[in-house]
Amino acid sequence: MNFATTALHAVPADATAIEALLPDDVVSAQSLRGEWTTDLSMRHAGARRLLVRYELQGPAGAPVVLVAGGISAHRHLRGNDAFPEKGWLNELVGTGRALDPAQRRLLAIDYLGADGRLDAPIDTADQADAIAGLLQHLGIGQLQAFVGYSYGALVGLQLALRHPPCLQRLVAVSGAHRPHPFASAWRALQRKAVTLGALQCAETQGLSLARQFAMLSYRTPEEFEERFDAPPEIINGRVRCAAEDYLDAAGAQYVARTPVTAYVRLSESIDLHRVDASQIRVPTTVVAVEGDRLVPLSDSVALVEALGTLGTLRVLRSPYGHDAFLKEPDRIDAILVTALRGNGANP
Amino acid sequence: MNFATTALHAVPADATAIEALLPDDVVSAQSLRGEWTTDLSMRHAGARRLLVRYELQGPAGAPVVLVAGGISAHRHLRGNDAFPEKGWLNELVGTGRALDPAQRRLLAIDYLGADGRLDAPIDTADQADAIAGLLQHLGIGQLQAFVGYSYGALVGLQLALRHPPCLQRLVAVSGAHRPHPFASAWRALQRKAVTLGALQCAETQGLSLARQFAMLSYRTPEEFEERFDAPPEIINGRVRCAAEDYLDAAGAQYVARTPVTAYVRLSESIDLHRVDASQIRVPTTVVAVEGDRLVPLSDSVALVEALGTLGTLRVLRSPYGHDAFLKEPDRIDAILVTALRGNGANP
Repeated sequence: MNFATTALHAVPADATAIEALLPDDVVSAQSLRGEWTTDLSMRHAGARRLLVRYELQGPAGAPVVLVAGGISAHRHLRGNDAFPEKGWLNELVGTGRALDPAQRRLLAIDYLGADGRLDAPIDTADQADAIAGLLQHLGIGQLQAFVGYSYGALVGLQLALRHPPCLQRLVAVSGAHRPHPFASAWRALQRKAVTLGALQCAETQGLSLARQFAMLSYRTPEEFEERFDAPPEIINGRVRCAAEDYLDAAGAQYVARTPVTAYVRLSESIDLHRVDASQIRVPTTVVAVEGDRLVPLSDSVALVEALGTLGTLRVLRSPYGHDAFLKEPDRIDAILVTALRGNGANP
Repeated sequence: MNFATTALHAVPADATAIEALLPDDVVSAQSLRGEWTTDLSMRHAGARRLLVRYELQGPAGAPVVLVAGGISAHRHLRGNDAFPEKGWLNELVGTGRALDPAQRRLLAIDYLGADGRLDAPIDTADQADAIAGLLQHLGIGQLQAFVGYSYGALVGLQLALRHPPCLQRLVAVSGAHRPHPFASAWRALQRKAVTLGALQCAETQGLSLARQFAMLSYRTPEEFEERFDAPPEIINGRVRCAAEDYLDAAGAQYVARTPVTAYVRLSESIDLHRVDASQIRVPTTVVAVEGDRLVPLSDSVALVEALGTLGTLRVLRSPYGHDAFLKEPDRIDAILVTALRGNGANP
């Protein structure tokens, strides 16, 4: 086991005094990273020895909230004084937020398969089993809440179904009990783009194209209309549309940080996901975004209906569609404040 | 010039008597095919000598309706006794329909570029100019109507703008004054799939993948939910989703009949399209499909508003989205009957 711990700062009542000394996107919080090896019996891939990497931010005695994002997310939620690099959830984690690392201890992991070394079908149930083991390993009896977004919502539903004592409450944002068949088709074609690229050693070009198609499913026509309404140009005799620079950049950025195998196996994992939500016994807030092109509102409604009295639905409309969790931090924070209220921490 | 004419049948009052002798998808109609060479000054590609291939069905004296479809459409609308092979609009052309080749003379063309031999940017204005020339060549002073669907609607808008004497009325189905920026981005990525395939010496695989992504834009999540709600299978260690067989088949079918260059240049042509509809002086019925993922209702509404008193909007909701024109023949026919009424022919 390999723990990287940091000096523990006491956070003063007026936290801004210390924060003024740190870059804007860094919070002062007790932080540690670690990794844990487990022997997991995977649903489709049999017994495997796997490594689970995690990061914890926040004071040791505080209630623990696990935050899990999309397939591109990882264990580093936000820059802090131990690990100052920007996190994937920088805007939503911070002083005064529901996810305030001075008030709650935030746990996040790198998903199984995220390092690209597990080339096998990965089920959301496998992720949930690994998390249940990690919590036991870390001596965390129960999470105050599991906040899951996109793929993280699917993993949270599996954790609630398979290991209900692990969590007091689930917040499932932009994810449901099953992948929508249209979204599955969209992902299947993205994986075909990777396969096409791999034919002659242009794997990263295939991955870039896959990511660019994925971007269209994460965002909405409203946003594209707002940003890319210019006529196309003709460059070297070919038509080039206004959104292409943006999409190329998104593809290149993704390729630089994502192993091809990680992308393929986690994309598949979304499509393998199936949960009978009527068997879940954990209070669950389902957050749906109207206009989400991957998770239609109708699937979120079906999920809440299956949850019965344990389910609560919150709906918001955002031009960012599936990416609203990342792009609308104030509105998501307001929902999280309500969802986490009355669970033993300051709101 | 190369005319293939057929014997002219008089169509009896009880047409079913003769039709009973023909296969179900063949109508008895006077039909001819031809091709015409023109020197065209193209908007982006300069002066070119081009061939325009056309087919006419229906009696010589009847009012002429030009029917133009999507970028995959061609001059053969429906099987008839001269050319019995199935057409691309078999369901919507026939006895008792608005598009009845016993009552109207139906004209259709192969688009410029459709043979894959014109590897240059093609504007919808170029298509309109070629059609205006063809009408003159054929001695057709004025079309009773131009019925355009998808790309055909864009070409019809250009014809109405640039050559108003050519047509009495325009029916523009599932096409607007501009491509929507989100739809343009979607098409740009399809063209990148073709480019990626070409890099790998797998051009047809690239085209197949492009077509499969296009299918997702032509149809709707509702249809996919209805047809492909089965869980995925794991085949040779990879996840295969329920829609993949269908999409593979759609890709293969398309590749078999479409030159790569034709696809790329006509796809580009949609993105080059821009019309100032406030300058159009031809009565126009705009038909929009709610749930069309390529042409949002808001763009059809904007088009009708720009047309002012000359514009009429018809909206329908269909699980087939952009493909409703092809998949909902009865409902589309009802709209065409109204749109073409009172223009000198039997309804």
